[in-house]
Amino acid sequence: MKPLKIAVIGAGSSYTPEIIEELTRRREKLPVTHITLMDIDPHRLEIMEGFCRRFAAHLGSDLQIEATLDRQEALSGARFVLTQIRVGGNAQRILDEKIPLKYGVIGQETTGPGGMFKALRTIPPMVEIAQDVEKYCPQAWIINYANPTGMIAEAVHRRSKVTIAGLCAGGYFPRDHAVQALGVSPESVQYNYFGLNHLNFGYNLQVDGISLTDEQFDQVLAAATWGSVAAELLHNLRLVPSPYLRYYFHREQAVADAAAKPLTRGEQVQQIEQEVFQAYADPTQTTKPEALKQRGGGGYSEIALNVMEAAYTNQPQWIVINAPNGGAVAGLPEEAVLEVPCMVNASGIFPLRQANIPKSVWGLVAAVKNYEQLTVEAALSGNRDTALLALLAHPLVGDYHKAEAILAEMLEANRQFLPQFYP
Amino acid sequence: MKPLKIAVIGAGSSYTPEIIEELTRRREKLPVTHITLMDIDPHRLEIMEGFCRRFAAHLGSDLQIEATLDRQEALSGARFVLTQIRVGGNAQRILDEKIPLKYGVIGQETTGPGGMFKALRTIPPMVEIAQDVEKYCPQAWIINYANPTGMIAEAVHRRSKVTIAGLCAGGYFPRDHAVQALGVSPESVQYNYFGLNHLNFGYNLQVDGISLTDEQFDQVLAAATWGSVAAELLHNLRLVPSPYLRYYFHREQAVADAAAKPLTRGEQVQQIEQEVFQAYADPTQTTKPEALKQRGGGGYSEIALNVMEAAYTNQPQWIVINAPNGGAVAGLPEEAVLEVPCMVNASGIFPLRQANIPKSVWGLVAAVKNYEQLTVEAALSGNRDTALLALLAHPLVGDYHKAEAILAEMLEANRQFLPQFYP
Amino acid sequence: MKPLKIAVIGAGSSYTPEIIEELTRRREKLPVTHITLMDIDPHRLEIMEGFCRRFAAHLGSDLQIEATLDRQEALSGARFVLTQIRVGGNAQRILDEKIPLKYGVIGQETTGPGGMFKALRTIPPMVEIAQDVEKYCPQAWIINYANPTGMIAEAVHRRSKVTIAGLCAGGYFPRDHAVQALGVSPESVQYNYFGLNHLNFGYNLQVDGISLTDEQFDQVLAAATWGSVAAELLHNLRLVPSPYLRYYFHREQAVADAAAKPLTRGEQVQQIEQEVFQAYADPTQTTKPEALKQRGGGGYSEIALNVMEAAYTNQPQWIVINAPNGGAVAGLPEEAVLEVPCMVNASGIFPLRQANIPKSVWGLVAAVKNYEQLTVEAALSGNRDTALLALLAHPLVGDYHKAEAILAEMLEANRQFLPQFYP
Amino acid sequence: MKPLKIAVIGAGSSYTPEIIEELTRRREKLPVTHITLMDIDPHRLEIMEGFCRRFAAHLGSDLQIEATLDRQEALSGARFVLTQIRVGGNAQRILDEKIPLKYGVIGQETTGPGGMFKALRTIPPMVEIAQDVEKYCPQAWIINYANPTGMIAEAVHRRSKVTIAGLCAGGYFPRDHAVQALGVSPESVQYNYFGLNHLNFGYNLQVDGISLTDEQFDQVLAAATWGSVAAELLHNLRLVPSPYLRYYFHREQAVADAAAKPLTRGEQVQQIEQEVFQAYADPTQTTKPEALKQRGGGGYSEIALNVMEAAYTNQPQWIVINAPNGGAVAGLPEEAVLEVPCMVNASGIFPLRQANIPKSVWGLVAAVKNYEQLTVEAALSGNRDTALLALLAHPLVGDYHKAEAILAEMLEANRQFLPQFYP
Repeated sequence: MKPLKIAVIGAGSSYTPEIIEELTRRREKLPVTHITLMDIDPHRLEIMEGFCRRFAAHLGSDLQIEATLDRQEALSGARFVLTQIRVGGNAQRILDEKIPLKYGVIGQETTGPGGMFKALRTIPPMVEIAQDVEKYCPQAWIINYANPTGMIAEAVHRRSKVTIAGLCAGGYFPRDHAVQALGVSPESVQYNYFGLNHLNFGYNLQVDGISLTDEQFDQVLAAATWGSVAAELLHNLRLVPSPYLRYYFHREQAVADAAAKPLTRGEQVQQIEQEVFQAYADPTQTTKPEALKQRGGGGYSEIALNVMEAAYTNQPQWIVINAPNGGAVAGLPEEAVLEVPCMVNASGIFPLRQANIPKSVWGLVAAVKNYEQLTVEAALSGNRDTALLALLAHPLVGDYHKAEAILAEMLEANRQFLPQFYP
Repeated sequence: MKPLKIAVIGAGSSYTPEIIEELTRRREKLPVTHITLMDIDPHRLEIMEGFCRRFAAHLGSDLQIEATLDRQEALSGARFVLTQIRVGGNAQRILDEKIPLKYGVIGQETTGPGGMFKALRTIPPMVEIAQDVEKYCPQAWIINYANPTGMIAEAVHRRSKVTIAGLCAGGYFPRDHAVQALGVSPESVQYNYFGLNHLNFGYNLQVDGISLTDEQFDQVLAAATWGSVAAELLHNLRLVPSPYLRYYFHREQAVADAAAKPLTRGEQVQQIEQEVFQAYADPTQTTKPEALKQRGGGGYSEIALNVMEAAYTNQPQWIVINAPNGGAVAGLPEEAVLEVPCMVNASGIFPLRQANIPKSVWGLVAAVKNYEQLTVEAALSGNRDTALLALLAHPLVGDYHKAEAILAEMLEANRQFLPQFYP
Repeated sequence: MKPLKIAVIGAGSSYTPEIIEELTRRREKLPVTHITLMDIDPHRLEIMEGFCRRFAAHLGSDLQIEATLDRQEALSGARFVLTQIRVGGNAQRILDEKIPLKYGVIGQETTGPGGMFKALRTIPPMVEIAQDVEKYCPQAWIINYANPTGMIAEAVHRRSKVTIAGLCAGGYFPRDHAVQALGVSPESVQYNYFGLNHLNFGYNLQVDGISLTDEQFDQVLAAATWGSVAAELLHNLRLVPSPYLRYYFHREQAVADAAAKPLTRGEQVQQIEQEVFQAYADPTQTTKPEALKQRGGGGYSEIALNVMEAAYTNQPQWIVINAPNGGAVAGLPEEAVLEVPCMVNASGIFPLRQANIPKSVWGLVAAVKNYEQLTVEAALSGNRDTALLALLAHPLVGDYHKAEAILAEMLEANRQFLPQFYP
Repeated sequence: MKPLKIAVIGAGSSYTPEIIEELTRRREKLPVTHITLMDIDPHRLEIMEGFCRRFAAHLGSDLQIEATLDRQEALSGARFVLTQIRVGGNAQRILDEKIPLKYGVIGQETTGPGGMFKALRTIPPMVEIAQDVEKYCPQAWIINYANPTGMIAEAVHRRSKVTIAGLCAGGYFPRDHAVQALGVSPESVQYNYFGLNHLNFGYNLQVDGISLTDEQFDQVLAAATWGSVAAELLHNLRLVPSPYLRYYFHREQAVADAAAKPLTRGEQVQQIEQEVFQAYADPTQTTKPEALKQRGGGGYSEIALNVMEAAYTNQPQWIVINAPNGGAVAGLPEEAVLEVPCMVNASGIFPLRQANIPKSVWGLVAAVKNYEQLTVEAALSGNRDTALLALLAHPLVGDYHKAEAILAEMLEANRQFLPQFYP
């Protein structure tokens, strides 16, 4: 059997076992033989290696599982590189969530000032990883789940020729909601989709080529059970948005709600992860721990494997990916990374032209994209002025004095993770 | 002498005498023989007709001045149609300024909810005027100063083939500031410029082909003496923005300042106009009244005459105009009306490609353009849902519940001027 | 079992049995239940109906086969409409081949004056068929093999909203040549592709993501064994062209060769078809007749079924199709129909952006595209002046007096099939 | 008085005195104080220096005239650099005209194989000049009349940041013909224009904003009195083409005519120039010699001065220039140099968007542009394969074996002027 190797960078993430599971499930179509787990944290890596071996054995998989602290070793010979790093860990996430709230701005790990600082921390090492991929396994594709995945993809595209698939589970949400609401098969659901990671919109939903009726559309929205955005607004928009739209369209309530919570999401995750890792570390544990379900964010492994399967078999798939626009979405810059449906096959990732971009939210997407591009530039340059302009460009900040204050406090709180700003 | 006729629609505006003055000054190059003043308010029209005749006589002009309440009569035979209507007058302007403030949003006649309602009131009659121009004087160009000039131009372009120059004095501001700060001649100053009406940016300033030094650039900013945007921010941006940028980048302070003022700008103007019209009505008054200086907004007549002169003589001029993008500004929709440098000659208005669009403000411009396009659509359709989406798309509103509340109150307050919403 | 119906328009074509065969082979993935054969020639239709039933029985298929002279009946309820009409039959084809040769221009049924007249004859009925599809089976896709397939697709796109896949077997040629020359699997071969029907180019060939060496590339060209274009020129171009490129790059030899042949291709086909139809008509004949192999042009049914399968199952496929550019190929008009790789799924046909369009042949493609667009316009309008400009625009004609002479003779020879020119 | 210097590179050209004359005529608007004549031929330079001084004195000009063999000296301090070099002189031009005719292809100094070899000879020194301009007078603009001006402009744009105006008198032809035919003023004539140098088209002609009637249009064509293209074809096209269109649309007759002439144009010019230079050399000659009128090609100095005046005064002008497309002409590459109307002012050269590009000739322009771009690439690289592809791409060559034969003979005949091909 021909060797087919995957490297997992940031393998200490609690998501790693899902990869093992999905690889096992699909071993016929995607016959991966080796997986190398790499992390900078030897403790988490050791726990994960142990658990993954027990879990693979339990699943009946004959996948060769290795672990290493050495990136070059992990990358050598890999056909796919899964990246799931979290720079600064949950501790920094919690600061991302808490500091902006003091200024009346949502604190959150993927958008607003919190997301911005996650980008500033994560982009430099991700660019380094991409450059190592070019060196040690130049044919390999990077499959990235680390957030904010859109900005990371844009930064990697600017600094490297490597193929990178910036993933998010959200691309399948409109399909999943329609399946749940209407009782139809996943294959029968079609839709357009455009936007950015965590600011995206499904539209023009059809089942077997027939557009949804107003009633069906409202059922789909109801099935989503987010309650994140007012139902009458969604009905007016006729879009299936990312639930994160709440941060923009109910910004005042969202801030109030966040401020009222006893624990931030990061603090909850910190507790869950402690429990999960305790289980992983238990040498008798051979299955996914119960607590993992509370962790959220599942579904990535399905998409990751879809991308790898399409690239490996050269059988095309339709997958929503964070990729450079290239004319797929009119009215937004050609080189900007957007979250759009792509065809993936062995030749690469090809964004598909999306007709009739919704007129109601195009400018919001552009404004957030502008913030993202300035953030990428600041992350790569370490220029404080650019970081300030990025924060100012974010629709949830906007005000100069507020931006200044938030920037000062957050830079300070992230000092040790931002060598480009503090050389 | 070959007759050359101008029609002024909304001639009851206090700006009309400036037109007379500028036409007299340029009679050699632009030999206008007839001007017809038209308004729907017979009282203001009569005062204006009387004063303009006295003023023309005083200036030694032999311009034939007529007045009419009939639009068709005014338009027939005209080569240029100047439009300066104010639907609802100062009374509605004051509501535009006051209502949004209750919700913590800037109240203002050109942007935000106030500007939006001015657009909703003004667009339908402006489209009617354009369609009458096509009927009664199809070769004529419309020269529009009515605000919001960008949205009006976009609406007219959607519904008519007529040539319309959406004017604003702001296009010459970077030149004027440089002349004042650096003591150079106007002809020696060059710059790029892009954005929207009242949200625009001069950049890449040069004198005789040499880029400004940092010191010179700061001098230009200082000469502007706006204080509207923090100096260090402007230095960071390296742009010469419209002073209205304050509403976006100092949004909290701008709202606080507006709330603290005893009189809104509309209320001040109301008082000034009363005084000005008293003077106009005085049969002994033959010169522009002193009070007019407080009125502000001068400079339009210079640009209006520049456009007319270029069209009439076929000698090209570089003029900033609100015109359909057509590829001049990368990253914004082709059909969107932007405020950009254009070449004007007898063949029409040609936007000039602007290189290196500033990365720091592109998304803000896109977001406001989105709001503008939704507003134009709402103005033309009278669709309340679209109006709500427009308000929601405005970066200074954003929040759904706030948008709903503002919309409800403002629609009610404008009921009699919005027949498309209350058929 | 849910009914799934195909209509075949022009079912009297000798290709029809291949469809039956391919449908039978794929019945699991594409469970077609009904096929309706339609033609305007009752005699050929009757023969074909009889043979297809025997052939299906022989193959063990339970496909319901019907025949009708009525287009509406054929279309009603169809999910896919296969069009393979030949207006004027082989008799006109032979004139297409012979008349141009008198003027020193290649005579040929897909390009040059011959192809142009085939387009003029075929476009009006194809547009009518498309409009009937909109009326009687609006969800259906048209799968067209009638030549010239690119111009037909462009005409249908201009006059109808129906989804049309303009097919040609040539899109798989670079793959097939590589498979043959290098002994690799079809799935391992990747390439870019662009151009027009019968003027197209594969490039950037890779096997498993690795670019071909010069030696491998020359092997692929040799495997093609066309000899249609000089080997050293192909090596210089580094492209895998359509064999029809010979008409452009060896235009003098191509004309000389054609003039020297005792029979034109159309005359040969006429003889073969006679033999084939004799066999079809024989009530004991249950398999494809031997003579069919000489007919050429096989492979269409594979692609046709690929398109149908992708649309029906919503599992994407990469297929080369004649489709509107839409930005896939830079430097050519957005609305122009090109032959490019597309992703096909239930949502439609999406051209995939082709990077690095070959600089050596871009202008030739543009020139031929220009001729095609003028031909489409002439076919739709029946305007003789436009037809003259089309012929003049063809790179193989070019000269005005030559174009005039060819046009006059060919219009006359096609008079009865060109009602739009002779109303 | 502030010094304002012009450098003339290739000042030995017989056109140089026209520059002196035009500068004198416009000294008020464009107060040039110094002109430096530079050439590599000391004999012609000396004659020209002497004559220009006498001529200037005769005109009453106080222009300071210098001459030098040193390019750096000529360029230092210059505001404008006029380039009018002819590499290989008339001797090579005559070969450009004669060799292609042997192969049945038009021989001509601006297009076809002849124009191609003029480009191959001229581009390398023009790129060197541009790079010297960047070094010695970086603010200067190059005003080029050397042919083929479009390809030279494209090459200089690829290799340098200098501003270059590629000129041709043809841009004013539609205006001039209309003035002559209709008796209207030049200012009243408007038109669109697009294409390449010597393959361009005026269209949409208007007088005072009113489109020409068919009769007027035919009068304009008649006034042109070229007879170069059949009148009924021009009527059908509804375009005012460059007379060089004859080479494409009457290619057979054009070759026959050329072959029948006793002297080529180059041979005629050689005789005329001998006479002209004899007169220039005569120390009593103070006015332009009679023989100069037969030289042809006048009108360049008018356009050259228009460009310089617009750049110097910052008063915009509408001028047809060979400049990078940049979206002015849809359907052709953004970076391709086209001959299009531009606005020129102190900020640079801005192509103006041309609506409704004529559908009848777009592909021909694209094909010739493709040849031009390959020629530029060959000229810069000295790659013989690329030169072959360029010749093959030319619509008047097309055939591979013909291209090979022409290339071989012409390369040999130009050996000493093509160091890039014979290193």
